[in-house]
Amino acid sequence: MNFMDIETPCLLLDLNILKKNCEQMRNKCLSLNTTLRPHVKTPKNIEIAKIALNKDVGPITVSTLQEAEYFSSYGFKDILYAVGIVPAKLPRIAKIQLEKKSSIKIVLDSIEIARSISDFSSKNKVKFETLIEIDSGEGRGGLNTKDEAIMKEITSIFKNNKFTKLVGVMTHAGHSYATNDKKSIIEIANHERDEALKAKSFLKKIDQECSIVSIGSTPTIMYSTDLEGITEVRCGIYMMWDLAQASRGICKLNDIAVTVLASVIHHKVQEKKIIIDAGALSISKDLTANKFMPNAKYGLICDLKTGKPILNLNLTDLHQEHGTIDVPNKKWFKSLPIGSLIRILPNHSCLTCAGHEKYYVLHNNEICDVWHRINGW
Amino acid sequence: MNFMDIETPCLLLDLNILKKNCEQMRNKCLSLNTTLRPHVKTPKNIEIAKIALNKDVGPITVSTLQEAEYFSSYGFKDILYAVGIVPAKLPRIAKIQLEKKSSIKIVLDSIEIARSISDFSSKNKVKFETLIEIDSGEGRGGLNTKDEAIMKEITSIFKNNKFTKLVGVMTHAGHSYATNDKKSIIEIANHERDEALKAKSFLKKIDQECSIVSIGSTPTIMYSTDLEGITEVRCGIYMMWDLAQASRGICKLNDIAVTVLASVIHHKVQEKKIIIDAGALSISKDLTANKFMPNAKYGLICDLKTGKPILNLNLTDLHQEHGTIDVPNKKWFKSLPIGSLIRILPNHSCLTCAGHEKYYVLHNNEICDVWHRINGW
Repeated sequence: MNFMDIETPCLLLDLNILKKNCEQMRNKCLSLNTTLRPHVKTPKNIEIAKIALNKDVGPITVSTLQEAEYFSSYGFKDILYAVGIVPAKLPRIAKIQLEKKSSIKIVLDSIEIARSISDFSSKNKVKFETLIEIDSGEGRGGLNTKDEAIMKEITSIFKNNKFTKLVGVMTHAGHSYATNDKKSIIEIANHERDEALKAKSFLKKIDQECSIVSIGSTPTIMYSTDLEGITEVRCGIYMMWDLAQASRGICKLNDIAVTVLASVIHHKVQEKKIIIDAGALSISKDLTANKFMPNAKYGLICDLKTGKPILNLNLTDLHQEHGTIDVPNKKWFKSLPIGSLIRILPNHSCLTCAGHEKYYVLHNNEICDVWHRINGW
Repeated sequence: MNFMDIETPCLLLDLNILKKNCEQMRNKCLSLNTTLRPHVKTPKNIEIAKIALNKDVGPITVSTLQEAEYFSSYGFKDILYAVGIVPAKLPRIAKIQLEKKSSIKIVLDSIEIARSISDFSSKNKVKFETLIEIDSGEGRGGLNTKDEAIMKEITSIFKNNKFTKLVGVMTHAGHSYATNDKKSIIEIANHERDEALKAKSFLKKIDQECSIVSIGSTPTIMYSTDLEGITEVRCGIYMMWDLAQASRGICKLNDIAVTVLASVIHHKVQEKKIIIDAGALSISKDLTANKFMPNAKYGLICDLKTGKPILNLNLTDLHQEHGTIDVPNKKWFKSLPIGSLIRILPNHSCLTCAGHEKYYVLHNNEICDVWHRINGW
């Protein structure tokens, strides 16, 4: 199968780059003496999860119960569902755990939800492993480490439950994406670690076991030098990388493992525009690279064979199934005739991949396999 | 099945509103004496296409070959694939046409592609019906009506082909979305119509039959009063509507048929933020309503039961699976406890729906059915 045999738009995944990225993060975690619990919300695919772990199964992080179910069915037993739980999702989690003999760890940050979990657990004799979410500055989910009274109450709710256990704390310094300054990211990384450890210390003080201290954002881990006491990290985007990360200096352009393959479908010669068949559904409308890389627009245009950016060309505008590339001069209409193929480096791999149901896997620039994704909830 | 039995995030579709919207557009087209060829790229679903047409099959417009295949398999015979064709897609179109006994009309705007279609057609003895795309001001695909030499050449290529036929012209005034001024939209609508008719006149002049004169953008059709000579219109978003259209005055908020159902998963009391489990994947990062409705942000928050916007609340920020609602004061933490449900009106229905694999269909605010979507390419 070569590029001309597949239909555009579609997602290409460079296997060599993926493997290198995964190895780099495993080595980083090894050097930090912490466990990597890769976040599979980016790949949503079993083959990639195995490459990330360098083994058939291992601890993973998921962002949907669809992922939890899918990975459980491949024998993954130790899954952390990193989105704040609500009671309505407990029956499905219980069902997956029972049918697949897996443990889906759930996270919470409120007394109400701790009570709901406890009630459901007792009533249905279902075991849950829970973690308290800590906000280490992102301002999304999680308790402040000063909220000791709430943590204490949650702890006592689970201590009184025969089935459900509090097993640890978790946090996510997603605000590390807001800067491209290494020093600031290191400060955020240290704070993320310190807040997680502070929460653990408090739990110890009140005689609560805390075997998991989980942190994770790719930028903070990349710059960490000391994670003593942190039992695991939950990064994910490092497998693929993207322009958002490259724009912040966390990776290089040639570390990015995914591109979208598209066909040139129109030449607008007077307007100096090339129109392609990749639009908002195959690219996403994410623009997060543009804060630090204003030329990124909706993506950088790359050469088909080398996968390297074509100087100065970007995906300038998007409709549902159309993309517009502004070209500086008319020579581009010769270089990129109608029907020719280009590749696009995405702003945000997680969102771009989510528009697609499969990856065309490249090995040495030849399509060697097709891997499926588990989208939806 | 009630709201508490389904898992969030998910897509809700109000059947009564959908039916009313579809009837309104059918009546509009009837009054304009033109055929409605609904664009099913918004719903990507068979039941909705039937409601749009008010019959089991009829002419439709698609944006992907996945849609073409899916609708063909339900007996749709007259399909217009409204994205500029490239040679690599011809084998699949030929296969669908043969297997499903359907006609998939294809659009083009260049001599090179006309030649490729003609060559493929002759070599494989495959019939194609083709339309010349005209650019009536959008600046995306299409020839200028002044490009008579190119139109003539395309015409002669197909005249010399035993299998393939040029059947008409099509245009799309998508730039009507750039304004909220009724007068400007009417001007764009008149221009869209006039350019299509000009292309047809030219074809007649050179003895080329032109049985289809196809135009279509929802805003331009809504404001049209005279479409004499236009054989069909290809609007789609009117079935669902969205904030982008409401912000431009094309519909009202209570005409919008789709909302995303989400759960409150965290309270950030100090920060006055409510976190929900609907993020970029279930909402999309589209912000197109904001140009004329700056308060729309990533979507307007609606009450679960009424589906009506809750005064001043919007989806202020998005992560992959998290959404943030800034609330003006702490009373909202009582009104929207953790675990409670809200609904979100989207900026752009086409993109929001594309994140989902199914619709939960509401009849009088009760879930009465589940309908599937055909995503991907």
